[in-house]
Amino acid sequence: MQMNDLIVKKRDGGELTTEEIGWMIRGFVDGSVPDYQMSAMAMAIYFRGMNRRETLDLTLAMLHSGETIDLSGVSGVKADKHSTGGVGDKTSLVLVPMMAACGVKMAKMSGRGLGHTGGTIDKLESFSGFSTALTLEQFYENVEHVGMVIAGQTANLVPADKKLYALRDVTGTVPSIPLIASSIMSKKLAAGADVIVLDVKCGGGSFMKTEADARALADELVAIGKGAGKQTVAVITDMDEPLGLAVGNALEVREAIDALSGARPGELMELCDTLGACILTAAGVAESDEAARAMLERVVADGSARDMLAKFVAAQGGDPAPVYDPSLLPTAPVQIEVPAEQEGYVNHIDAGGVGMVSMHLGGGRATKESEIDLRVGVVLHKKVGDSIKVGESIAQIHAADEASAAKAAEALKACYTIAAEKPERAPFIKGIVR
Amino acid sequence: MQMNDLIVKKRDGGELTTEEIGWMIRGFVDGSVPDYQMSAMAMAIYFRGMNRRETLDLTLAMLHSGETIDLSGVSGVKADKHSTGGVGDKTSLVLVPMMAACGVKMAKMSGRGLGHTGGTIDKLESFSGFSTALTLEQFYENVEHVGMVIAGQTANLVPADKKLYALRDVTGTVPSIPLIASSIMSKKLAAGADVIVLDVKCGGGSFMKTEADARALADELVAIGKGAGKQTVAVITDMDEPLGLAVGNALEVREAIDALSGARPGELMELCDTLGACILTAAGVAESDEAARAMLERVVADGSARDMLAKFVAAQGGDPAPVYDPSLLPTAPVQIEVPAEQEGYVNHIDAGGVGMVSMHLGGGRATKESEIDLRVGVVLHKKVGDSIKVGESIAQIHAADEASAAKAAEALKACYTIAAEKPERAPFIKGIVR
Repeated sequence: MQMNDLIVKKRDGGELTTEEIGWMIRGFVDGSVPDYQMSAMAMAIYFRGMNRRETLDLTLAMLHSGETIDLSGVSGVKADKHSTGGVGDKTSLVLVPMMAACGVKMAKMSGRGLGHTGGTIDKLESFSGFSTALTLEQFYENVEHVGMVIAGQTANLVPADKKLYALRDVTGTVPSIPLIASSIMSKKLAAGADVIVLDVKCGGGSFMKTEADARALADELVAIGKGAGKQTVAVITDMDEPLGLAVGNALEVREAIDALSGARPGELMELCDTLGACILTAAGVAESDEAARAMLERVVADGSARDMLAKFVAAQGGDPAPVYDPSLLPTAPVQIEVPAEQEGYVNHIDAGGVGMVSMHLGGGRATKESEIDLRVGVVLHKKVGDSIKVGESIAQIHAADEASAAKAAEALKACYTIAAEKPERAPFIKGIVR
Repeated sequence: MQMNDLIVKKRDGGELTTEEIGWMIRGFVDGSVPDYQMSAMAMAIYFRGMNRRETLDLTLAMLHSGETIDLSGVSGVKADKHSTGGVGDKTSLVLVPMMAACGVKMAKMSGRGLGHTGGTIDKLESFSGFSTALTLEQFYENVEHVGMVIAGQTANLVPADKKLYALRDVTGTVPSIPLIASSIMSKKLAAGADVIVLDVKCGGGSFMKTEADARALADELVAIGKGAGKQTVAVITDMDEPLGLAVGNALEVREAIDALSGARPGELMELCDTLGACILTAAGVAESDEAARAMLERVVADGSARDMLAKFVAAQGGDPAPVYDPSLLPTAPVQIEVPAEQEGYVNHIDAGGVGMVSMHLGGGRATKESEIDLRVGVVLHKKVGDSIKVGESIAQIHAADEASAAKAAEALKACYTIAAEKPERAPFIKGIVR
């Protein structure tokens, strides 16, 4: 087999066989297929796409490129959740404890973030002492006995995806649905859960800008999951403005704790309830969507989901005290309000722009080497559809110093579009693919 | 500037600026733009193309990546000829001496061949002692005083093209008109001639399979040449069957000598006359096509073109005796005829197939390291439109041994399609782009 022939085949719109895809991925990982051929192939796939069978084969070839987590020794149903990522997305911090409190074992591998805020494991480091560096034995132990675990990705899980993603990132080949779908699903399948729920964001603050693209990705993800024999559901959700109110690491942890304490802040809880109900019904823990939602309401109301968060934080070496007293979380020394200069209704909030404000405050990584300041970020007071008066605060900036706070306030204002009329709001949950 | 941004721009159908193209090629040559980004860019160009301005900029950026030949010190008009390559193409061996005999200085850089036969410089090694390894001083000296020179490409001429072509060759990105055109023209411009004539082949035995593709390439080549301030003409010619009768190194040299001796064998001479007339009129040496063709006829009839070939061979260290006695050329020990098994008319000859027969006899290189057997090859007796009877010889095989001759004869038969009706022949010269 010659890699050049496979590139030409795909370039001309052909279909790669299972054997060809397997050979290519093995060769890419062992170095016999060089980066310069793989990047040309990725660009050919960008233009020509892959059919369902090819995408599943690519996913499975990547899955088998390294070790996999075997959760078969853990009792009960094991579930996993993935989000395609958005600004202010603290869903895992709320949903995972809710699920564990309902008796579904949650075994989650998370990455560190690169961009506007840290990833879930960066956010969790707001609890002092918390660690995601677990041995595989500790990982299995915690899933079984705590009911949930969130660990950093181990070194040899899906090495093909690590290598391919790094290459795509610098060769203009990231936005390809078969490549995105196989990247996500190879990692989810390697993590070993029985039930996989995917939160596919769409809109300006996310990777999929249009609803059509988000739906195409959701269809692809679910087809792969089912093709690999897993219960898989995807929920398509709006990311045209930041999710919830807080953008920033400790600030998002605080919003998550508030949600688990019964604050029910709008879309964040709507999303957690929808994803949670999908997991509970797919897992067979609840018989219907209604029964599932009732369970979810109960574990928040009785404090068991919040207790689960505390138990989990402690099990991974963290101090759980802030779960019951969020004022103990890292706090920025400078907090300023951002006054509105115009009257009207919030018509649009540039989610990507808000993310950049958080990053420039020090809350995200510009490069892999950047240190994250967990304390800083933005808390929005006004969201799309809210009315505002001149001088009223639209948001609060949390900063390390006065100069960066002032700069952030100016940048944040530019993220808001104010109109005279109250805008029509599109539904937040745009669809569910099962 | 970030290469990833340029890849994304081209991938999305954007136009690269002059500065971007220059930066990219400089970076590719100095290694700061890695192969894996350049191959993704080449694939994006394959799908999105480049406009005229981008293609000219790419050509000039590649041209300026290394040394160039400066022929300004050589008196008279200097011309160069390039063919996109086909089976049995010995045109340069005939045309270049004809031009020099007409007083146009010919300074040609040629490559060695990879494929069915050697390149022009392999063929010329049929003259014992002949060398193309000239110093730059010898090169200028021979153009001035002999009137023609054919040298191997010097090491540092257009290094960007060498590197890019090697990459395209293994990443499925060869067949892209802007990439092909800039590759050809950067080398032609670097060689320093005032007049450039291009023979763009089309059909089964060539790179451009359709007339439309060949015309698009011809248009692009001429636009680049003019954009760079050179007299440039492209002739589109048929390559649906091999050019002339001989395919093989010494065999093609013999056919070229026969042509220069006044044999006027069909399309080969038609092509040399057409290309030659284009050069003579573009160079201002002839006032009209008719005057040019009369000059060309004269230099063959009076033997001056043949004498020029002998003078040139001697000037580069070769023994010119075979020019006047072709039986002195290297000769294969085994020569067998290929009898027809069917009556009718030759409807089609698979030029690529005939090339493979020559290569398998040892006349071409399968890999860069292969040694060429100059003696072997095929001489066709029948071409498209010719009538044949059962048992009549359609071709002669020249081989190193009986076994390879027998195998070649069988393979050659399979290259012929015989029909009951005499086929309509498409014109050999399909167009001229000025």
